[in-house]
Amino acid sequence: MNYGIIGFSGRMGQEIHKLFQEKNYNLVFSYDENGEKFISKPDILIDFSLPNVLNKTIEYALKFNVPIVIGTTGYSDEELKKIKELSSKIPVFQSYNFSIGIQLLLKCIDLVKKFTNDWDIEIEETHHRFKKDKPSGTAIMLKNRLNKEVNISSLRLGNVVGDHKVIFASLGEIVTLQHTAISRRTFAEGVLMASEFLINQTVGFYNFSDIIK
Amino acid sequence: MNYGIIGFSGRMGQEIHKLFQEKNYNLVFSYDENGEKFISKPDILIDFSLPNVLNKTIEYALKFNVPIVIGTTGYSDEELKKIKELSSKIPVFQSYNFSIGIQLLLKCIDLVKKFTNDWDIEIEETHHRFKKDKPSGTAIMLKNRLNKEVNISSLRLGNVVGDHKVIFASLGEIVTLQHTAISRRTFAEGVLMASEFLINQTVGFYNFSDIIK
Amino acid sequence: MNYGIIGFSGRMGQEIHKLFQEKNYNLVFSYDENGEKFISKPDILIDFSLPNVLNKTIEYALKFNVPIVIGTTGYSDEELKKIKELSSKIPVFQSYNFSIGIQLLLKCIDLVKKFTNDWDIEIEETHHRFKKDKPSGTAIMLKNRLNKEVNISSLRLGNVVGDHKVIFASLGEIVTLQHTAISRRTFAEGVLMASEFLINQTVGFYNFSDIIK
Amino acid sequence: MNYGIIGFSGRMGQEIHKLFQEKNYNLVFSYDENGEKFISKPDILIDFSLPNVLNKTIEYALKFNVPIVIGTTGYSDEELKKIKELSSKIPVFQSYNFSIGIQLLLKCIDLVKKFTNDWDIEIEETHHRFKKDKPSGTAIMLKNRLNKEVNISSLRLGNVVGDHKVIFASLGEIVTLQHTAISRRTFAEGVLMASEFLINQTVGFYNFSDIIK
Repeated sequence: MNYGIIGFSGRMGQEIHKLFQEKNYNLVFSYDENGEKFISKPDILIDFSLPNVLNKTIEYALKFNVPIVIGTTGYSDEELKKIKELSSKIPVFQSYNFSIGIQLLLKCIDLVKKFTNDWDIEIEETHHRFKKDKPSGTAIMLKNRLNKEVNISSLRLGNVVGDHKVIFASLGEIVTLQHTAISRRTFAEGVLMASEFLINQTVGFYNFSDIIK
Repeated sequence: MNYGIIGFSGRMGQEIHKLFQEKNYNLVFSYDENGEKFISKPDILIDFSLPNVLNKTIEYALKFNVPIVIGTTGYSDEELKKIKELSSKIPVFQSYNFSIGIQLLLKCIDLVKKFTNDWDIEIEETHHRFKKDKPSGTAIMLKNRLNKEVNISSLRLGNVVGDHKVIFASLGEIVTLQHTAISRRTFAEGVLMASEFLINQTVGFYNFSDIIK
Repeated sequence: MNYGIIGFSGRMGQEIHKLFQEKNYNLVFSYDENGEKFISKPDILIDFSLPNVLNKTIEYALKFNVPIVIGTTGYSDEELKKIKELSSKIPVFQSYNFSIGIQLLLKCIDLVKKFTNDWDIEIEETHHRFKKDKPSGTAIMLKNRLNKEVNISSLRLGNVVGDHKVIFASLGEIVTLQHTAISRRTFAEGVLMASEFLINQTVGFYNFSDIIK
Repeated sequence: MNYGIIGFSGRMGQEIHKLFQEKNYNLVFSYDENGEKFISKPDILIDFSLPNVLNKTIEYALKFNVPIVIGTTGYSDEELKKIKELSSKIPVFQSYNFSIGIQLLLKCIDLVKKFTNDWDIEIEETHHRFKKDKPSGTAIMLKNRLNKEVNISSLRLGNVVGDHKVIFASLGEIVTLQHTAISRRTFAEGVLMASEFLINQTVGFYNFSDIIK
């Protein structure tokens, strides 16, 4: 598999590149604040950059006409709409979080929310001090899954990879669902899984619920 | 509903009595270390005592020939077998934990364990310094649900009502499912729910999976 | 000791009344939204009400001319100034938190902050859904002790009595100092300790650092 | 500074080597299960190996006659006695934990234990699944500092670098002091600090209380 990375020099870009190389895949294209490096047309594009790069990303995806995995966070509703539109032309896999554990948390949320209608709910997320968006894309994804107006508390601390809690409380008890990422490699592994899945798909919009059923 | 409580003077006995009285139910029988108080035959028996009281409990249940809700913890396998046998003669509802949150945790465990076969698992429980059994009956119930040999850490601290964690970890991430009881009333409410359910059942063995589906 | 309580019908008012009665002290004055009940002049006044009651509180304190313990939270800077002024006429004990554990947390903060100058700091507080002020008075007290601009996350969940965390993080490690109140009696005991201390003091402003050295 | 590492191929050995090289120090000696590599006599020795290597370690330390920093955990009392004896011949720095945060936790313990004589105490430690000793050396160090018989709960989960909690509880409240290591580099930085300190000391036994006062 020949891959291209948009946001190559970022933390996740580097982590993905490292893992893909271990799998003997070849980097043939990259784009970041240092500009473009083109060796050959990739089989798949991966984007872990910033929302303001989106137009450039769409341009490359259409030019190469290949599937794209998008892991950038912090998109506006309008930007998300553009991504959906893109998926009518090429296969697009988009997620705000590429760990398996978060996908399990989402399924637990589905289950718990059914029996806790009048309970209070709070979301809390903690990330490293370098994180640019607040709240995290994952926290927004958790909130959307609850389908309710829920307060999100965001903590920024040292080098914390990523921690999310969804807390449900009645007057007598508390149920807490928590996910802690302890290395960025976890997310890179999710990107690998998504890429190997997406490369065999037809035009359309995909996410983890298409993989983990 | 006229009720009888075995283990009347205990923490849970008192909490249940208080709630049932608020519901205008009548205490007509009690048994504890101060002996027996009999006013009339109860419609239902509730047992929150100690394992060594079990023979006396069975004796009363058969004598009154009424449904019984059992919340005592720390039973041996043999004692649990006796309880199952009792359920061939009268309706028996038995659980090591009477909170809704713990029932939700059990369902989340079912879900998470399916996708985390090679992850490490740990159980942790914290209770007040007066708790007699170790590990807690609830922790044992969680472990049984995992269907695996799992280490249980037991902490005894002050007046903590009851806290349980099931922690799943791969090399890159951690999923934690946690339940915190913040008042004993929560358990009393579960006993009330179980009692009102059981009084309408025929002979047999029941637990929360018969109520929360 | 004959005591009066302002905010008598509130959660803390009731808890303090209960404990003081166990000590055979006598309630001789109370004030709350139901009005005033006067039996005789108290030896000490206790205020757990709301900031907008402050003028009434000061009026009573000056009229009775007795020491006053103030535990109300959510005061503005201007209101706090009025309390300081009051302490030039009668003995005043004021604290945003009456537990010993929080006093220990404050001392730990003094210690940790000395060696963690360039670390990130976050404060988190969780309280029951009925709490009117946000962030909690205790969280503000913790922040003031840090003497820095620190973000406070406030969670409102069920019937949680009161939970506070101060988290310090460098790029490689995290130190967390946490206090969890598990019953309001803890605070009532602190009020008792403060009252028995204050009744022997001369005019002035006092807090826990005058008791726990 | 020319350094030698005993336990060179281990997790900590590699981490220390990486940091020391960044500082332009030179590795001139190493020893591990692959045997000995000798380039020249080191200025300082660092041991992060296993207790059963101790005799070999002492042999090298005396042969080179240089200061030694020891971070191996799991020593028996007898082995610790041998280390103390060694410090009558060369400068020895020994600690079960090389992070600053743990040193701050120890100081907080000193403070909290003074006011919580009749409180319950529990210690909990969580480490990666590869850790060989149980409980961790750090947990033992925390327990010794409490100077009391305290229960230690040990959890082994995925790739957790190292987490320690000391929990104090009365009937009404809980104080938790927690340390979380999020990268092994933290410990390597502590080893660097200890090495640069030790190289200027005379014969004797040293630990972090000689650095952080």
